[in-house]
Amino acid sequence: MTRDRSGNLALGPGPEFDRIRRIIERLPGAHGLGDDCGVFPHGGEFIALSTDVSVEGVHFSLDWIDAEEVGWRATAAALSDLAAEAAQPIGILAAVTMPAHAPESDLLDLMSGVGAAAKHAGAEVLGGDLSTGSAWSVTVTVVGRARSPIARRGAVPGNRVWVTGVLGGTRAALGAWQQGKDPLPGARTRFAHPEPRIEAGVWLAQRGARAMIDLSDGLAGDVPHLAAASNVAITIDLDALPIAVEAQAQAKQLDIPVQHFAAEGGEDYELLVALPREFDDASGFTRACGLPLTLIGVVAEGSGVHFLMSGAPVELRGYNHFR
Amino acid sequence: MTRDRSGNLALGPGPEFDRIRRIIERLPGAHGLGDDCGVFPHGGEFIALSTDVSVEGVHFSLDWIDAEEVGWRATAAALSDLAAEAAQPIGILAAVTMPAHAPESDLLDLMSGVGAAAKHAGAEVLGGDLSTGSAWSVTVTVVGRARSPIARRGAVPGNRVWVTGVLGGTRAALGAWQQGKDPLPGARTRFAHPEPRIEAGVWLAQRGARAMIDLSDGLAGDVPHLAAASNVAITIDLDALPIAVEAQAQAKQLDIPVQHFAAEGGEDYELLVALPREFDDASGFTRACGLPLTLIGVVAEGSGVHFLMSGAPVELRGYNHFR
Repeated sequence: MTRDRSGNLALGPGPEFDRIRRIIERLPGAHGLGDDCGVFPHGGEFIALSTDVSVEGVHFSLDWIDAEEVGWRATAAALSDLAAEAAQPIGILAAVTMPAHAPESDLLDLMSGVGAAAKHAGAEVLGGDLSTGSAWSVTVTVVGRARSPIARRGAVPGNRVWVTGVLGGTRAALGAWQQGKDPLPGARTRFAHPEPRIEAGVWLAQRGARAMIDLSDGLAGDVPHLAAASNVAITIDLDALPIAVEAQAQAKQLDIPVQHFAAEGGEDYELLVALPREFDDASGFTRACGLPLTLIGVVAEGSGVHFLMSGAPVELRGYNHFR
Repeated sequence: MTRDRSGNLALGPGPEFDRIRRIIERLPGAHGLGDDCGVFPHGGEFIALSTDVSVEGVHFSLDWIDAEEVGWRATAAALSDLAAEAAQPIGILAAVTMPAHAPESDLLDLMSGVGAAAKHAGAEVLGGDLSTGSAWSVTVTVVGRARSPIARRGAVPGNRVWVTGVLGGTRAALGAWQQGKDPLPGARTRFAHPEPRIEAGVWLAQRGARAMIDLSDGLAGDVPHLAAASNVAITIDLDALPIAVEAQAQAKQLDIPVQHFAAEGGEDYELLVALPREFDDASGFTRACGLPLTLIGVVAEGSGVHFLMSGAPVELRGYNHFR
């Protein structure tokens, strides 16, 4: 992604994204907004940056996860944007606000989680800031390097759409907590301890990835971003989705198909990628990255996203962070 | 500043800084924390980054300044850290939290201020994030490049200590607002529309600056950081301070010497710099940067900071953001 390639507003529909579009109109020089990372060329490659805010009561509750997990999760979510750009992490910065009377031990635990997630991804903690505030929040900014960053805009008709890992685990955890129950351990881990798919992003870029995005708004929210940015139509076969085992019970309670449940759940932090039609090495991906890679859709001329189940069109709702 | 040079905890005394020291103990790989910027080498020079959070009710009130000024101020404060590193800004990222029912026009105005401050400094808006929260906050992360970054740690005995601009204007504005009055226009501008001293930082680096810091915690708070980082003693002659005219009336009301008022006031965002004894070109600085540059102290062997007025020692309090 270079500056002139990034003039396009790479966002799908939705009130959160309409708001971001109105901000971008006020910032005529802000080319990078709307992609996973902002990038600039430097020293023969590209520097990629992204910033991500996590707010208590909006993105997490300390009744659900502990302070160290809050720090890990916020940092992993930001690093996931580097993964989607096929960038290698270099460093992170963390700005924290905390209630005036919160125990300092929570702050230290939160920062331990930030540090652990950074170290796990090979990134250094380069800076931070600290303030009082009415609730806990942590804003993590990540910086990385990429020889050939992958934006959301490169998908072309004929490409195939793949997804890493399994979907719906985070939503299963949220659903359990919202009912006052403990989530299944696998679902809890998906929420509290997500893994940014750094290696996967680089591997896919080396195999010719044309466009990539990390799944923070859910498949139903993020496929439209990729389609809009690339100016193509995308059809997703919901029957093909790789689904977390923990999603079954929650979907059943809601009386919706588990495929809808998984496609509408956010914050799985898996990668959605458009690859050339010829790509055929999912088993090589799994050997290299320890994850499944699943073919779920195709790119065609046109615009918009079509979700199909048993061959029939399905309407899905995107996951809205701005709540 | 390189990674191995930055292992030192470049912070003066105070409860906010004790807290940061305890965080750093939990992050053994976090070399850059405690300086104005974190830096890493890339492409034959250095990339410098800093992150700065501004919270409604802590750092600003929308009763005092409007949303566009909030955005400008938050961005200028973050850019000031690049100035103190002698770095040229490249880009900024802004993560905003806003109350759920706040008007969108305030958000757009705030982001216009962010964009204007970035453009003024030659930086691009590279990214952002948006969330609801219980109060307004904006976390600005800045990225820049420097051939020879200037840290806080390079002052050596015999250096002279200089300061750009004039001090105490921001505190004069805060004092007026806290009394329910309108500040004098010059003081209001200092608070609402600070200017990051980018050109000044680069000019001073080219003239041999040994150590530099921007004045966010006030002279009384920031000189100790520079002395601790450089492992030297610093003596400041308060009679020499360049003082904002607006500070006089506020100091008189508080019945304290205006020199104390100015030295204890925070967020002036001027640069404090240690220069070789031979430096003698304040008038050249003023011609180049349009600002005064004033000799206010000397560096000696030892440790700690001595503030003198009429030759007698004076105790001053640092400005504490963590309130």
